[in-house]
Amino acid sequence: MAAVRSAVRRALSELPEGTTALVACSGGADSLALAGALAFEAPRMGVRAGGVTVDHALQEGSDERAGAVAGIMSRLGLDPVRAVTVRVDGAGGPEAAARRARYDALDGVVDALRPAVVLLGHTLDDQAETVLLGLARGSGARSLAGMARRTGAYLRPLLDLDRATVREACALTGLSPWEDPHNHDPRFARSRVRHEALPALEAALGPGIAAALARTATLLRADADTLDALADALHERAREGTGLAVAPLEGAEPSLRSRVLRRAALESGCPASALNARHVRELDRLVTEWRGQAHIDLPGGVRGRRSAGRIVFGR
Amino acid sequence: MAAVRSAVRRALSELPEGTTALVACSGGADSLALAGALAFEAPRMGVRAGGVTVDHALQEGSDERAGAVAGIMSRLGLDPVRAVTVRVDGAGGPEAAARRARYDALDGVVDALRPAVVLLGHTLDDQAETVLLGLARGSGARSLAGMARRTGAYLRPLLDLDRATVREACALTGLSPWEDPHNHDPRFARSRVRHEALPALEAALGPGIAAALARTATLLRADADTLDALADALHERAREGTGLAVAPLEGAEPSLRSRVLRRAALESGCPASALNARHVRELDRLVTEWRGQAHIDLPGGVRGRRSAGRIVFGR
Repeated sequence: MAAVRSAVRRALSELPEGTTALVACSGGADSLALAGALAFEAPRMGVRAGGVTVDHALQEGSDERAGAVAGIMSRLGLDPVRAVTVRVDGAGGPEAAARRARYDALDGVVDALRPAVVLLGHTLDDQAETVLLGLARGSGARSLAGMARRTGAYLRPLLDLDRATVREACALTGLSPWEDPHNHDPRFARSRVRHEALPALEAALGPGIAAALARTATLLRADADTLDALADALHERAREGTGLAVAPLEGAEPSLRSRVLRRAALESGCPASALNARHVRELDRLVTEWRGQAHIDLPGGVRGRRSAGRIVFGR
Repeated sequence: MAAVRSAVRRALSELPEGTTALVACSGGADSLALAGALAFEAPRMGVRAGGVTVDHALQEGSDERAGAVAGIMSRLGLDPVRAVTVRVDGAGGPEAAARRARYDALDGVVDALRPAVVLLGHTLDDQAETVLLGLARGSGARSLAGMARRTGAYLRPLLDLDRATVREACALTGLSPWEDPHNHDPRFARSRVRHEALPALEAALGPGIAAALARTATLLRADADTLDALADALHERAREGTGLAVAPLEGAEPSLRSRVLRRAALESGCPASALNARHVRELDRLVTEWRGQAHIDLPGGVRGRRSAGRIVFGR
């Protein structure tokens, strides 16, 4: 419990007195422990604490549960408390659609209540799962960088604490968590990662694997930030009309050149989900192994080719 | 078979005629397929082809087996062929010690025979395993960068081919591979990764996981090369006597600053195996969150502290 409270204290420490901090609470043990810690710490720090819960309307009785979670938050002393119902649909699979709907709803609450921060209950184990899910994409540092400690108003103060610690804190509060059956449903990739892949990795590689994955995320996020900033600068130098000048790319580091080529292809209309490392490598050969190749066919009907010292994209 | 031969052809394509290419062959299916492909391609390309096998003397009858592997290579037409016996001992666990002894022996053969290249039979699946083993260390991009396509004279032409393809090529040659029982021995981390962790990841995340891990290695190797080069430059700018000037570090990207702090700690005598991300983070706070902290205790009895605008290391 002390660990969770101290993590919340650190998260609130830079807020001016009188501002509002919200907790996003699903009713699960992690975010419930976070809500309890926020309710405990905020008044001591002169911060107003509220809560929000999102009803995804995907399971029978989810509206009642959202009401119950809101009730728990109110009894903890959080105020204001909001329960928001969303409609989950759209592309990218059920998990992505639910996440999108959830963050849209939270953004709406941020717009309405103007809190200084919204605390999210993701733990070190969630981070490890996110890294493994990113690893399956095989698309480099950014996909292994996991979740940020902070994105805009959203803060993840529990990212250094493992799930067992946070669940223990929840148990000590006496609050009854709700266990989302989707968390155990093998139709969902995250559930398979949590209950099958991570235990197998732990058995093969030792018990520190979740922490190692979370550390990897932190390190690679910093790396990706640096490389993206450098690639921005290279992109600006190379940009020439609707294409890229070859000369500044030729002398650049391969890691930066591939980022710039990828971005230019995306800007030309290639769908990110279909543009892969092989496409980028072929584009790279137009720069570094130029022997008069024909155009490169890219996803979305885009073609990349070299012409008069430039890499240009067209349909 | 075509895929293995074409990979070997590409590896040999830049060698001047009359130079020698060696294959390092354990007698396992992967390196046997490689030896067969080298024996087939080299004469067509005017390259002299030889082979070397290393007897680790760790298993009963290993000397006879090394002799048999040398015999196979000779019958394939490779010449010169060498069988070298090594003594495996020293720190870092049996796998690390065997690897060290093996590369020492190969280095010795390189010194004696002066080949232009030595081909190693690592496949995409070996690369995926190496990435997972690196992931368990949790020490960032370099530990996820896997094996290089080229290190000095050593080339890994099969790194883009999966093991199934290479084994099929071996079967088609009619050569009888030797299956190292250590590859199935759960005492070895690589064996656990191969037979437990990777299949579990594949079950959870889909069949492309080995290829995704190998792609990750390629991308992160390029990233790590760029960041290491930039960190080199920052290190030179910051170096001041036996310490580091704070000023150039303050404005640097966190990813570069942490690399420089880590290297400076290593140069001061911290053992690499014990210096972890938390130590580096504490050092980083001396730069970015300076409030007159005491020294930081580092492994190997080294202390890091801030003094007069410098980060200094001592005992």
